[in-house]
Amino acid sequence: MPTIKYYLREGLLPAGVLTSPNQAHYDDGHLRRLRLVRALVDVGGLSIAAVREVLTAVDTNEESMHHKLGAVQEAISQPATGELDPIAVKDVQAFFDRHGEFEFFGVDESNVTGMLVSALSAARSVGHDHFPELLDSYMEAMRIVARADLEYIARRTSSDDIIEAMVIGTLIGDAVLKAVRRVAHAEVSREAMDTD
Amino acid sequence: MPTIKYYLREGLLPAGVLTSPNQAHYDDGHLRRLRLVRALVDVGGLSIAAVREVLTAVDTNEESMHHKLGAVQEAISQPATGELDPIAVKDVQAFFDRHGEFEFFGVDESNVTGMLVSALSAARSVGHDHFPELLDSYMEAMRIVARADLEYIARRTSSDDIIEAMVIGTLIGDAVLKAVRRVAHAEVSREAMDTD
Repeated sequence: MPTIKYYLREGLLPAGVLTSPNQAHYDDGHLRRLRLVRALVDVGGLSIAAVREVLTAVDTNEESMHHKLGAVQEAISQPATGELDPIAVKDVQAFFDRHGEFEFFGVDESNVTGMLVSALSAARSVGHDHFPELLDSYMEAMRIVARADLEYIARRTSSDDIIEAMVIGTLIGDAVLKAVRRVAHAEVSREAMDTD
Repeated sequence: MPTIKYYLREGLLPAGVLTSPNQAHYDDGHLRRLRLVRALVDVGGLSIAAVREVLTAVDTNEESMHHKLGAVQEAISQPATGELDPIAVKDVQAFFDRHGEFEFFGVDESNVTGMLVSALSAARSVGHDHFPELLDSYMEAMRIVARADLEYIARRTSSDDIIEAMVIGTLIGDAVLKAVRRVAHAEVSREAMDTD
């Protein structure tokens, strides 16, 4: 498997224990690390340099799991794109203020903030200034999603497995949610509008 | 404005009323149609041929608004991609069955089904076979989102405006939800894990 050799050479996988001059033994820890690296590269689309940074964060013992998950989440999110509307920045800041326990990190410091400001700026640019009124309902819904997501990743025991499940769950979950949202639209719109 | 001339030439905008040999009058209906065409092309990324199909559906008087919204939603969703896992197809079918009022349209007939099967197939291909267990919580959350979305579009009165708000709300809303989900992850993970 050439990729494994490549990951070993890049220092993303620790070397196995040599059992003979040309044989090495790899244990479960190696396999878990390999799954994590693959999730970051293949599903997350991260560069080798970015994977190295994530692994450094994961391997830092002083950090709480909460902080590790936050660091990985930033690494798998894209920075702000397009023209950013200053009013959209204010709307996002107000949203963070309403959900009190957050610190507001600006678009330069946080990809998650950047993603939100980019989307609201795009809405404003096509005349949809009232979009931020949806944010509190969206947050209420996303709390249900986040609780289910956390339960899903908490079944794992090793920190590599938890982080791997978080990467897969976040990225593939985005696509699943997009589809489920459309199913819910069909249901709710039928209840409200269909007079057949 | 060259784009408007282009849309007129392609028959996506009805001609104005000539007020002099080289002046035409456009009313509010024209403007609403222009906004809708722009949303479909610029935000939805639809081809001119696809826009024409959507407009035909929108202009068909026999159709209920519920059916029109469904047709547009399919038009702004991508068909299935990647290798489709037959077990993922069964999982999606079971999900539709549990939420009884839906008919299950296969991946060939519905882009929304295709999107869901594609995402669950991708999860399975990286060893995440239990992902479908999240679907019911996701549906519960998405009902909250869908009710907020429907309220948002129902403020409009003309059918062009309703469809335009649905296109913008669905596509830009996907990006907003992705970001809000990450904010909710941070909140829920802190509550559950942070011991600082």
